[in-house]
Amino acid sequence: MLPTILDLASLQSAYAAGLSPLDLVEQVIARRRASDDPAIFITPTPDDDLRDAARELMARAPGPNSLPLWGIPFAVKDNIDVAGLPTTAACPAFAYRPEQDAAVVARLTAAGALMIGKTNLDQFATGLNGTRSPHGAPRSVFDRDYVSGGSSSGSAVAVASGLASFALGTDTAGSGRVPAAFNNLVGIKPTPGLVPNVGVVPACRSVDVVTVFAATVGDGVAIRKVMEGYDAADPFSRKAAPASLPASGLRVGVLDRDEREFFGNKDVEGLYDAAIERARALGAAIVPFDYAPFRQAAELLYNGPWVAERLAAVRDFLATNADDFDPTVRAIIEGAKAYDAVAAFEGRYKLEGLRQKTKEEWQKADILMLPTSPTTYTVEQMVEDPIVKNGHFGRYTNFVNLLDCAAIAVPAGFDADGHLPAGVTLIGPAFTDDALAPFADAMHRALNEGMGKDRAAVIPKKSLVPQADDRSIPIAVVGAHLTGMPLNHELTGGGGRLIRICRTAGDYRLFVLPNTAPPKPGLVRQPGYQGKGLEVEVWALPPEGFGRFVQNIPGPLGIGKLVLDDGSSVSGFVCEAYAVAGAQEITELGGWRHYMRMKTEREAKGE
Amino acid sequence: MLPTILDLASLQSAYAAGLSPLDLVEQVIARRRASDDPAIFITPTPDDDLRDAARELMARAPGPNSLPLWGIPFAVKDNIDVAGLPTTAACPAFAYRPEQDAAVVARLTAAGALMIGKTNLDQFATGLNGTRSPHGAPRSVFDRDYVSGGSSSGSAVAVASGLASFALGTDTAGSGRVPAAFNNLVGIKPTPGLVPNVGVVPACRSVDVVTVFAATVGDGVAIRKVMEGYDAADPFSRKAAPASLPASGLRVGVLDRDEREFFGNKDVEGLYDAAIERARALGAAIVPFDYAPFRQAAELLYNGPWVAERLAAVRDFLATNADDFDPTVRAIIEGAKAYDAVAAFEGRYKLEGLRQKTKEEWQKADILMLPTSPTTYTVEQMVEDPIVKNGHFGRYTNFVNLLDCAAIAVPAGFDADGHLPAGVTLIGPAFTDDALAPFADAMHRALNEGMGKDRAAVIPKKSLVPQADDRSIPIAVVGAHLTGMPLNHELTGGGGRLIRICRTAGDYRLFVLPNTAPPKPGLVRQPGYQGKGLEVEVWALPPEGFGRFVQNIPGPLGIGKLVLDDGSSVSGFVCEAYAVAGAQEITELGGWRHYMRMKTEREAKGE
Repeated sequence: MLPTILDLASLQSAYAAGLSPLDLVEQVIARRRASDDPAIFITPTPDDDLRDAARELMARAPGPNSLPLWGIPFAVKDNIDVAGLPTTAACPAFAYRPEQDAAVVARLTAAGALMIGKTNLDQFATGLNGTRSPHGAPRSVFDRDYVSGGSSSGSAVAVASGLASFALGTDTAGSGRVPAAFNNLVGIKPTPGLVPNVGVVPACRSVDVVTVFAATVGDGVAIRKVMEGYDAADPFSRKAAPASLPASGLRVGVLDRDEREFFGNKDVEGLYDAAIERARALGAAIVPFDYAPFRQAAELLYNGPWVAERLAAVRDFLATNADDFDPTVRAIIEGAKAYDAVAAFEGRYKLEGLRQKTKEEWQKADILMLPTSPTTYTVEQMVEDPIVKNGHFGRYTNFVNLLDCAAIAVPAGFDADGHLPAGVTLIGPAFTDDALAPFADAMHRALNEGMGKDRAAVIPKKSLVPQADDRSIPIAVVGAHLTGMPLNHELTGGGGRLIRICRTAGDYRLFVLPNTAPPKPGLVRQPGYQGKGLEVEVWALPPEGFGRFVQNIPGPLGIGKLVLDDGSSVSGFVCEAYAVAGAQEITELGGWRHYMRMKTEREAKGE
Repeated sequence: MLPTILDLASLQSAYAAGLSPLDLVEQVIARRRASDDPAIFITPTPDDDLRDAARELMARAPGPNSLPLWGIPFAVKDNIDVAGLPTTAACPAFAYRPEQDAAVVARLTAAGALMIGKTNLDQFATGLNGTRSPHGAPRSVFDRDYVSGGSSSGSAVAVASGLASFALGTDTAGSGRVPAAFNNLVGIKPTPGLVPNVGVVPACRSVDVVTVFAATVGDGVAIRKVMEGYDAADPFSRKAAPASLPASGLRVGVLDRDEREFFGNKDVEGLYDAAIERARALGAAIVPFDYAPFRQAAELLYNGPWVAERLAAVRDFLATNADDFDPTVRAIIEGAKAYDAVAAFEGRYKLEGLRQKTKEEWQKADILMLPTSPTTYTVEQMVEDPIVKNGHFGRYTNFVNLLDCAAIAVPAGFDADGHLPAGVTLIGPAFTDDALAPFADAMHRALNEGMGKDRAAVIPKKSLVPQADDRSIPIAVVGAHLTGMPLNHELTGGGGRLIRICRTAGDYRLFVLPNTAPPKPGLVRQPGYQGKGLEVEVWALPPEGFGRFVQNIPGPLGIGKLVLDDGSSVSGFVCEAYAVAGAQEITELGGWRHYMRMKTEREAKGE
């Protein structure tokens, strides 16, 4: 029996235990048929096409889990091309039938994933609520009166209700995050340009991002890694090295009192405070920051010239088919006609000015943790006041792509009734996508409120996100580089930080190198020698600083590998043998610091 | 007696020999008065103010050359604020009197430079030719019939005629480079955002750059370094580390046949070819590249929505003072009214698409060398057809800021009559400002055509630009990392390149390390041992790649310093002594490659 929520680890275990992709698609077909939300899909993959896809996979890659996403069912927001199915953007008159998969879809199916259908959305991805579609409004999986969030509404509901393991969204203002919050899911929002947009109907081309809804952070990251990578056909595609975050002592920026706005929703505010406490318990340093410049950037997205990008995407179609638009969507897009090119550039100047102000705030925090949406509404409330209430949802999301950030939305628990969920989003500078993930994963696990609609589900251990690759290199120093010694500045100046004080293994001997200034020891390993080990400090240097550090070491010293007292091996000082011939041995002193102290004392006594 | 051209080295020598800043300003005043070009300045600094500034400097910093630009006279384009003097942008009705210096002016005067006047320009910096000003057209210092180039016309002529040591321009389309070419000067065009624009009248704010006209590359770089640095008050100011270029074997991209366009000017074409030969003689690898995507980006600047930035800068003033504009400038700026916000974003999409295409071209070349301007015209020719002929000047300059490049324009010699000069521009990726300079300097010196109007002047040795800091780290490898050996990929994969094959000093011995896979040698120094040295390859790795490389080396090996057969010392493989105890010695084979060849042969024979 498959679990309610089809997370990757559970499904891969089932495959390893003998489930076949054909069995899986039959279950998906049955679940799809049994679903109580008729608004999830615009074009479900026909049953037989899904069976064919499973057979094709088994022919192409017979071994269970022999591809990264072997037999993993996924849904695709209907503004992303899937060859052979119509792309509608929730506007039937706009529909076209692409001959090629979007770049991300092609990468996912090549990795073995099975596409189960095209999902409903706020028309032309214009909205954060999920009600702006002629195909009806998908509903929160926890209360059919409530909106699902949007614009990637059907995608989130498909995952949260167990129809797919993951689903693709697109995110301009927050469409890949708000529906995650409303459905107890993870929303992975990559740095703009990391994942290519080839084959995606643009909303605001300069800031659109393809996203992943998943049951766990680990799933979402694994899927994003399949999707990402430079594509020259996307003008905004970028190549960049991953950015790192501190491996410990992460400074998490949270809203200060002045910038808290939950539109009266005390439940969500309480869940935000609880998330802050959870972050603190996980070892984060909680720091307030000024949200004002971020908020001002957020306001530009709809109340500024960027809305002209939406018009650019559909101008010809709008000219001939204005009546085919959702009235709210049409009103928003037609609003762009008020902006001239001067206003477009003036908007950019304003954004760049705000970007400079946010740089000061980024000095205070390594990442930000914000409410994903400050409140939620029923479908009825939303349609009564669609612009203003939709705007509430975007208060903490709209700035993220404009300011070139990576984000991961994670569940933050349920309101006092245990009824509706909320979420928080962890936001980092560009290309911290991987670096954000371990903390996001830890936050999700610490919450312990299940996955999607299954609040009893336990997040599988197997989907654990490994600690981010801390790119710094540990190096054991033994002499003049120790804290307080004359060359310690070569470590601190190269970006180094002390991570550990310990001893070498017992088979090392220490000598005073003759004729060195400042005085330096030579550490020599002699297998079989039985000593007590020698004091070392282990520092961490960024790779470039490490490289420069090694370059500056004069012979006879060098950097090899030292074995420490716990048996681990780490880069550290070694010494060419010729240089210790006849040198004074000080092994019995236990380390260079002891020797230098004695030397200073002797010299003070005039000896 | 001061030389005709007031380059920094000459002037600093004069100061060291007893010249006082007061003497200097008297000479500048006399030269200003004697100038045969009445159109250079819009507002010269009043004589007495200049004398006061010299006295103030001597009071503040009495020692000759005790500040980086002590007593160095400079001129400022009149779209850059100088406190107390009007800023007119060559439009008298637009004039305002700023209370503060522009950020760059404040930095220069703090460094001791003396501001001698505000210079003429194409109105609102809209033009590349220098004729669009109510204050008349500054003329080429070589022929008064010819344009000076623009928009920074007065600034270039001031330096080329010996009134100032350097002058500030601004450059959007090429205004800091074209006038350098027409006046036998160097034009330093920093990467956008490196030098702050606070206090500069915008032309196109998103791509405007403050530039330096100077007699030598060394002067220009030294001045730029005083001006540069992040300023949060400029929305486009950026912080970034300098980017490097290869220290040897620089690949210089030149126009391929299809993209050559000199508008019939065979002289300039010949000078471009001669520059290519000069570059080759200096050791550059000349590589053709496809200029088409760069040209298409260049065309966007005036024939695209960016012109709306010019309108944004003056919209309110234009609404009330349309008749106060130069008619050509007004026509260009009013053309912006045709662009709506959609067009502005569509222009950006086009630019980003072209940027992706240029990335492929940047794979072929480290820097580009292009004609600065493909031709020149008389003032009469220019005013007859001001838009088209101005456009010719920008053919090879307009893309540079849009595509985020650094550039240095250098003289390229005189036409067949020995009459009019031309220039070439060296263009590198963002933040290669420093890295470009040594090659630009070498190109200028190799030309040997003087400085500015003094064609007999010799570029002072003292202004030599030091070779760019090649940040890569050399490392000598001796075993499994040699070319063709199993671990060579650790070098090539880390960004390494082979720079030398040589031998160690004679006092090294080589051993076969037991139980290593792939097989590895251990190199051990034994002072006094008299061998023939051992074969090593010296590779260069970027610091980060070097750091990673060192980190991945297993004990007993490490990286220390090797002494080579020429007595030099370089990072390289060392081996802990314990590991060679009892190991097979292969010193007499001269290197690892010989040993491995013999081993393979023995194994082939079944031995």
